[in-house]
Amino acid sequence: MARADEEPDFDDITAAAARLAGHAARTPLISNPILDELTGARVLLKCESLQRTGSFKFRGAYNAVSQLDPSERARGIVAVSSGNHAQGVAEAARLFGAPATIVMPADAPAIKRQRTERSGARIVAYDRAKDDRDAIAAQIMAESGAVLVHPFNDRNVIAGQGTIGLEIAEELRDRGIDPDAVFIPCGGGGLSAGVGLALRTIYPAIAVNLAEPEGFDDYRRSLESGRIVANQATSGSVMDALLSVAPGPIGYAINRRNAAAAVTVSDAESLRAVAFAFRELKLLVEPGGAAGLAAVLSQETGLRGRTVLVVLSGGNVDEATLQKALDSG
Amino acid sequence: MARADEEPDFDDITAAAARLAGHAARTPLISNPILDELTGARVLLKCESLQRTGSFKFRGAYNAVSQLDPSERARGIVAVSSGNHAQGVAEAARLFGAPATIVMPADAPAIKRQRTERSGARIVAYDRAKDDRDAIAAQIMAESGAVLVHPFNDRNVIAGQGTIGLEIAEELRDRGIDPDAVFIPCGGGGLSAGVGLALRTIYPAIAVNLAEPEGFDDYRRSLESGRIVANQATSGSVMDALLSVAPGPIGYAINRRNAAAAVTVSDAESLRAVAFAFRELKLLVEPGGAAGLAAVLSQETGLRGRTVLVVLSGGNVDEATLQKALDSG
Repeated sequence: MARADEEPDFDDITAAAARLAGHAARTPLISNPILDELTGARVLLKCESLQRTGSFKFRGAYNAVSQLDPSERARGIVAVSSGNHAQGVAEAARLFGAPATIVMPADAPAIKRQRTERSGARIVAYDRAKDDRDAIAAQIMAESGAVLVHPFNDRNVIAGQGTIGLEIAEELRDRGIDPDAVFIPCGGGGLSAGVGLALRTIYPAIAVNLAEPEGFDDYRRSLESGRIVANQATSGSVMDALLSVAPGPIGYAINRRNAAAAVTVSDAESLRAVAFAFRELKLLVEPGGAAGLAAVLSQETGLRGRTVLVVLSGGNVDEATLQKALDSG
Repeated sequence: MARADEEPDFDDITAAAARLAGHAARTPLISNPILDELTGARVLLKCESLQRTGSFKFRGAYNAVSQLDPSERARGIVAVSSGNHAQGVAEAARLFGAPATIVMPADAPAIKRQRTERSGARIVAYDRAKDDRDAIAAQIMAESGAVLVHPFNDRNVIAGQGTIGLEIAEELRDRGIDPDAVFIPCGGGGLSAGVGLALRTIYPAIAVNLAEPEGFDDYRRSLESGRIVANQATSGSVMDALLSVAPGPIGYAINRRNAAAAVTVSDAESLRAVAFAFRELKLLVEPGGAAGLAAVLSQETGLRGRTVLVVLSGGNVDEATLQKALDSG
């Protein structure tokens, strides 16, 4: 079997799609006339907010857990996550009958914690500023023999996220559409690596754009400098789902070949996109999940006349955060 | 040309689908594992909340306006509506370059009024308790020569709503699924007549269920008594989109042949369904639009093992109403 620390290829993504069939939702690709009018583009939104567990993370988690031996699964699954990967892993583990332990920051949104617990996972909370989450996970693994599913630096996880790109391409083919660009929310880079790999294989000329939070532009700086660099801050953005420390090496190698640019999104732009999704699209999207939409909404020029894909990557927004977005104008 | 006060047939629905192509959204048909687990059924949700203008009403309005002569359209379109039909007619009129005047109750949700104005329509407000809205509309028509587009008692409007049933059937065919039942929000009965006609033509054995508000069960009583009877109340339900006075004769004739039952939904059940859609589906659905989902969620038995369609008919929910739903538990 291929090792988890190797790069996935296109065949890994098609294999993941076969495994996910009937378990992950085939999420809709929708458009909206107001959005097209505002941007001057033909925008197609891939609604991973409507995915099982409310985010794309279920895809990669399910694909990774499915690749473990039954004896490995029986010892349990461990994940370190601010919330969406936690839910994805917890639900994937539940479907395979495997125990799951999630190491989660104490300040993770309550909704994400509750959903993780609902899937039967045990939660171990840590302090983002003080504790070493990796050490906590390592200890759990040492004690139980459980296997870690990394949120992004894992071949099978990236291949699972890549199935989003396959589904988009299948739908575009049926509708006779060729895309010019795609905007993908980016934390550790697993989603963008998988989707970018799938889409660039099928559409070699597509411009793959990563959307990351202001103050957490490790991907932009890494792509520009040609080597992986980390963020200084570990918290302080409304886009809680995108606050990884640095690009994962596997995804970075892929994104370095495929990404056209990394675009930075401010908290205000993200919240405006959440409010736009609420008012105009009738969709709940969380701030991190709206980063790609925010990038498209703030690019007033450059997209006119283009066919632009946007991944809405998650919908697990707290009521308080939603209110903040709606109050922001 | 066929008269607007005649019954549509299946061919009228397929003709409407051709006219709507490229103008109305092909809305997604989604499922959710939590919903399936709660109901024991395989539930497929047709998301008309994601339709242009935020509700299914655009379909019927566009089809009706498209059937007018250019000279008729130039004199203008009039509609009487609590909000969703207003937005549908205003947007359809805008797309055809026709002036629109909407006669709207003064207590209509603010969001619906704003969206109607955004499409360029003129609004004439009336008092639900005191004013005769039909007289107001008649006066506008007499003065301007404008044409009325009725919210439900119109052949072309019903045929337009029926395109929802066609889209569902096309998707089910691609996926190899046969439905057992459908739940459709019901006010004047135009949506249920159109969708019911389309689905019963394709699936003669499907059980068509109308979901209407408690205290506004004119359809149930009309179906049971074999003649059209009206509601006593004119306001007082949270499901503002479903408060028509009595079944429209055209839709009633169709529903009488096709409907298995009319199910009554309480305000509490409707709000619970709105909260469920928000928390679990990540979709904004308005109380009236959630009536079918509410019926399915409250039917704890009877659907187990069945394949059940639900039309989520609109997403234009005010923030205050959404908060009320979320606070209700």
